[in-house]
Amino acid sequence: MDVFLDPAIGRNKSEALFEQLREAIVSGRLHHGDRLPATRVLAAELGVARSTITTVYGRLVAEGYVEGRAGGGSSVSYRRAGASESPTRPTTLSAPNLGLLDTTRWSLGGFDAAPPAFDLRSGRPDPAFFPLLEWRRAMSDALHVAPTGYMEPAGRADLRRALAHWVQRSRAVDADPDQVMVTAGAQQGVDVIARLLLRPGDVVAVEDPGYPPVRSLFLALGAAVVPVPVDRDGLVVDRIPDDARLVYVTPSHQSPTGAVMSLDRRRALLDLAERRDLVIVEDDYDSEYRHEDRPLEPLHRLDRNGRVVYVGTFSKTLAPSLRLGFLVLPTALVHDATTLRSLMDWQPPDASQRALHRFVTDGALDRHLRRTRRRYRERHALVAAFCHDAAEQGLVAEAHHHVAGLHTTVHLPQGVAEAAVRARAGHDGVALGDYGQCWQAENHPEGLIIGFGAVTTDDLPEALRRVDSALRHAAG
Amino acid sequence: MDVFLDPAIGRNKSEALFEQLREAIVSGRLHHGDRLPATRVLAAELGVARSTITTVYGRLVAEGYVEGRAGGGSSVSYRRAGASESPTRPTTLSAPNLGLLDTTRWSLGGFDAAPPAFDLRSGRPDPAFFPLLEWRRAMSDALHVAPTGYMEPAGRADLRRALAHWVQRSRAVDADPDQVMVTAGAQQGVDVIARLLLRPGDVVAVEDPGYPPVRSLFLALGAAVVPVPVDRDGLVVDRIPDDARLVYVTPSHQSPTGAVMSLDRRRALLDLAERRDLVIVEDDYDSEYRHEDRPLEPLHRLDRNGRVVYVGTFSKTLAPSLRLGFLVLPTALVHDATTLRSLMDWQPPDASQRALHRFVTDGALDRHLRRTRRRYRERHALVAAFCHDAAEQGLVAEAHHHVAGLHTTVHLPQGVAEAAVRARAGHDGVALGDYGQCWQAENHPEGLIIGFGAVTTDDLPEALRRVDSALRHAAG
Repeated sequence: MDVFLDPAIGRNKSEALFEQLREAIVSGRLHHGDRLPATRVLAAELGVARSTITTVYGRLVAEGYVEGRAGGGSSVSYRRAGASESPTRPTTLSAPNLGLLDTTRWSLGGFDAAPPAFDLRSGRPDPAFFPLLEWRRAMSDALHVAPTGYMEPAGRADLRRALAHWVQRSRAVDADPDQVMVTAGAQQGVDVIARLLLRPGDVVAVEDPGYPPVRSLFLALGAAVVPVPVDRDGLVVDRIPDDARLVYVTPSHQSPTGAVMSLDRRRALLDLAERRDLVIVEDDYDSEYRHEDRPLEPLHRLDRNGRVVYVGTFSKTLAPSLRLGFLVLPTALVHDATTLRSLMDWQPPDASQRALHRFVTDGALDRHLRRTRRRYRERHALVAAFCHDAAEQGLVAEAHHHVAGLHTTVHLPQGVAEAAVRARAGHDGVALGDYGQCWQAENHPEGLIIGFGAVTTDDLPEALRRVDSALRHAAG
Repeated sequence: MDVFLDPAIGRNKSEALFEQLREAIVSGRLHHGDRLPATRVLAAELGVARSTITTVYGRLVAEGYVEGRAGGGSSVSYRRAGASESPTRPTTLSAPNLGLLDTTRWSLGGFDAAPPAFDLRSGRPDPAFFPLLEWRRAMSDALHVAPTGYMEPAGRADLRRALAHWVQRSRAVDADPDQVMVTAGAQQGVDVIARLLLRPGDVVAVEDPGYPPVRSLFLALGAAVVPVPVDRDGLVVDRIPDDARLVYVTPSHQSPTGAVMSLDRRRALLDLAERRDLVIVEDDYDSEYRHEDRPLEPLHRLDRNGRVVYVGTFSKTLAPSLRLGFLVLPTALVHDATTLRSLMDWQPPDASQRALHRFVTDGALDRHLRRTRRRYRERHALVAAFCHDAAEQGLVAEAHHHVAGLHTTVHLPQGVAEAAVRARAGHDGVALGDYGQCWQAENHPEGLIIGFGAVTTDDLPEALRRVDSALRHAAG
């Protein structure tokens, strides 16, 4: 073995030598039983003080790489794990829950890719609307206080009070601050509830078509996910399987069809929950953006028996990458949900909670919503008109009526495939939502999701013109 | 039924009236089949335009609360769910996984309580050391960019590169940026791995004594958690059960005893992992704070087969409430772990990732660590001297040697109970760590955990004087 010292190393010779010898031993260049050069010899060879070598050998002995020999001198005492095999061979390590993940049909990717020229994907608010200045100020104020140690897993008491008040005022959801849990967006909110309530094999009813990331989450937890059809009145409650333990719904603005769940269905669902000891998870993901006067009341409002878990999020109203949302939990679940949450990630980050608290209580959120509602309403009108015209011309089979949110959906004429339209539009720089991914049923209608959150109002007409052209092309 | 309009309501009369009637129906004051007053009559009564009443009734019909009657007029069509029962009766709702949570022996509480006069609990860094100004600046810079939509679940590519570089430099952990996942502290890191690898009933080996929140997490996932003893050389590898699937260890600075795992044990553990297809989770929670020159190498360094998941955190070096940590994953697990993470909470928040990136790359983190290392070393010396003296005087049976971290541990003499010492110290305004909670074995030694992260250096001597007095008192 060659031992050498890089002259550039300067002062820290003993550290460099230790590291070099250690590496030689661990990598197998020096084998178990190999003798190290005598300290005197190596010192002379390297032109360093003998004490430097002694120190290094001492450390190697202390760390267990080297041992003193009976006849004097030192030898390598380290034996590499699996030394006979190639260190780069592929590991056999595998994730047993990989099977579950595979069944979720959930795919990632494209996060780092360049954004499309025209982004008509769903669930994305306009980054240009983000109240950067106000949020920065709120964050900066939040960071004038030194962070303390571990804090409340359900979130800051002041923020939970503010959110309870806000969700009452804006969505008529009655919530005691104790029932509120601050979460990393809606996704973590559903995760908390699902982990608390579901055992592998439990039956979960979801809307079909529905919201893929939550369906995939249930599958990843080993639940038996049963698709329940959706019509113009929302979830077809009669079709919920008898053995369902949890029902996940988007009653205010069904994701993705836009159906508003009728009062009859709501009553039926609540009745069912009471009869069968069901939990209803209500994801109220984007109804802050109403485009008509008709109010979209949460199901939670009608629940008198603590059967509904309300899931709120600031991903659509502010930005997904803030990771801020909340749950309104039935009182019966508060304690357990909080315990579980503390084991998942202890608590939400403190500074963004402080910032959100200020944002909610000083009216900045309300002002932001008023401003953005108006602007999204313009876009909604453009897209609704486009869909109407396309239906008139037979380019789409049916244009769903959306009273809220940041996307709209249409069905395609017989023989026209979503994939063909999306491919053509993609070729033209337009990314559309993925309607097919929302479906579990095999023979589902072909359709399109047209999001208008992330495209600018100026760009929207051109984007829609390109969708029109893709529709014409796909229709042959 | 009395219908009235609050004169203060002003413009929004139709909204107020709608709400009042809806509430009357939902609450049961108006029953199914009850007739509503004729529009003309009610308009006259309330002194509003008849069109206002017509609009309101129209909305009630549209929402399904009211229906038109054959003979003209409108009647209530809503039937309350469970109307015959008291609306406030307690729900039967329960969490089936509550049983698992109960077995975790994990208790929360006291998060909002006033902090103790002298905080000697473990795992808490000094909030006064937090680099508030630099962090605020980094966050403010991060918030000059409008947040985009959903981003990489494993964290920003630039931050993962920076962390891979940093952990190589500071902890000699070889990591490709693709193997790094940004997490909400170490707890979420372990959660990702545990959810990926464990099925209910799987055997997990943990150190005894060990770190309670992680043990509780495994239990909450339904794992069979087997305690494995710890001695001066760390985890007793021979005692790992044959059917273990995952081993959780703190080899650099065993939590809580402080033992540094010997090289023999490390080799044995890695050999075992390879023979039995085990995964080792290495929690390197506080070894940035070394108090002696002896390096504490991570187990990950010796792993040549991708068996070790390295868990890092900024909770001890910066602050727990930032919720920032990371994993270095074996390549074989990267894809699945990322998929799972996206279903848990999509991604880490963006702004704090940007801030951390800047903090790591511009040297602020290194500067911060140099500053704080020196200051914690002072405290460590004070506590070590105290423990040494107490041992000399027979007040403690054994003072463990801690080469790193923010706490130290001692064993108590025969007949002296931790509870008695902590109660007395608590009475005197001193909060100590909870040693008993770290144990699973029934007949475990009594001991104390003395944390020195959260107490000031000035206060520390007085705090230790009070511990001394509590020890004397408990010894009778």
